[in-house]
Amino acid sequence: MNPRIVFCVSDHTGVTVEAVAKSVLSQFPAFEFSLIALPFVDSAEKVQAVAARIAATPGALVFSTLTDPDLRAVLRESGVPPFDIFDLLAPAMEAALGQAATPGSGRIHSMASNYESRMDAVNFSLALDDGLQPQRLDQADLILVGVSRVGKTPTALYLALQYGLRAANYPLTPDDLGHSTLPDVLLTHLPRLRGLTLSAERLAAIRQVRYPNSRYATLEQCRAELTAAERLFEHHGLPVIDTTRMSVEEIAARLRNPL
Amino acid sequence: MNPRIVFCVSDHTGVTVEAVAKSVLSQFPAFEFSLIALPFVDSAEKVQAVAARIAATPGALVFSTLTDPDLRAVLRESGVPPFDIFDLLAPAMEAALGQAATPGSGRIHSMASNYESRMDAVNFSLALDDGLQPQRLDQADLILVGVSRVGKTPTALYLALQYGLRAANYPLTPDDLGHSTLPDVLLTHLPRLRGLTLSAERLAAIRQVRYPNSRYATLEQCRAELTAAERLFEHHGLPVIDTTRMSVEEIAARLRNPL
Repeated sequence: MNPRIVFCVSDHTGVTVEAVAKSVLSQFPAFEFSLIALPFVDSAEKVQAVAARIAATPGALVFSTLTDPDLRAVLRESGVPPFDIFDLLAPAMEAALGQAATPGSGRIHSMASNYESRMDAVNFSLALDDGLQPQRLDQADLILVGVSRVGKTPTALYLALQYGLRAANYPLTPDDLGHSTLPDVLLTHLPRLRGLTLSAERLAAIRQVRYPNSRYATLEQCRAELTAAERLFEHHGLPVIDTTRMSVEEIAARLRNPL
Repeated sequence: MNPRIVFCVSDHTGVTVEAVAKSVLSQFPAFEFSLIALPFVDSAEKVQAVAARIAATPGALVFSTLTDPDLRAVLRESGVPPFDIFDLLAPAMEAALGQAATPGSGRIHSMASNYESRMDAVNFSLALDDGLQPQRLDQADLILVGVSRVGKTPTALYLALQYGLRAANYPLTPDDLGHSTLPDVLLTHLPRLRGLTLSAERLAAIRQVRYPNSRYATLEQCRAELTAAERLFEHHGLPVIDTTRMSVEEIAARLRNPL
């Protein structure tokens, strides 16, 4: 493998530039990339220090999202041409919109206003985790349903954190699975229910970590529960997601959008 | 305001392309943009349907991350030139690395392997939320400390979901705040403690939503608690983050990196 150091330079959190870098780099499997995140590089002094570090790193690659053109110019002094999202996109956007870009404007305000609703959603999702407070299910945007350890809680929290959705989750217990319909408390909320399922092998492995050598973690038990849950999903016509090969981002994006 | 429809087209979750679009568009404050997310556009048929929809939308803007060059070509048939991350970055990356890109390779595997550790971290952060299971604090990567409603739980969950960090959180109660040192259970973990604080006005507003007209939500009470907490942070030399104007992404990115 060819090892390469990749610097991800941002004047903010660096979440976007890291995602872009990972996505593009995944198309070069012959290399072994080591990402170094450098967030909050938001002054000429900080950019100079970063540029010096890059210049001292043989074969370095640089991805950046620096909104200020002056800071981008300083970064180029490293001698390594950065792949900068704004350098790449801003000129074409300016042409398309017929206006010059205003560096840095708008971001802070939009985040702050959005923050409240997302925190509210997180608190809601925690309050309605694992079947708690079913009397508040009518306030939920989405209600995730599935057997124990199928991934309901992380998915609900991600929907709340990323999209500000009030996502409740409700576990199907072995008792619930013995019936031919979903629990009564869910029946008035059918349009907002989403079923989660998983391969029995994967579920057994996950449960095994939590309760080693329990009946709960046997492949047989997992398979029986998943089959019964899927039958209930089908009975009520719920949209279902098989999360076996999915990241939490992927599950959440699919749940958020029409299936 | 000039209203413009912005399509964010991705063959995957669309999280990256939406982040890039929002970041770039925030530099054009004279426009009012409406984003339409179109994730999982991963076949020629789906891209054709999207291209037709774009062609039928006057003044549409298009951001995309389509890893397959053939699909990118189909998208351009809409007549609206897309701002595609791969079109913009891949040629320069190929030149820098001296190799052709391999569309779509690598991504699924890296996500799946990462998924386990992130879910493990989420379960850990939930298990050690709000001071629960203090005997497991030695397993934490980070321990967030602060008064009630300062943002510990969402931040810990985001650190777990986004970065796979095992982030515990521990609340400072009015009782704790009456002492001159942090609670004993925290003292053996000082290097991994991080203090969270907030403006008293903001904290009072947040608490007011939860318990209207309570003493807990008064500005006076909030100010007293925050002052006492900040004194404890200073006493022990903890790194402290003031989250007043920050998004959860920003708080998490700052906590993850050296302060």
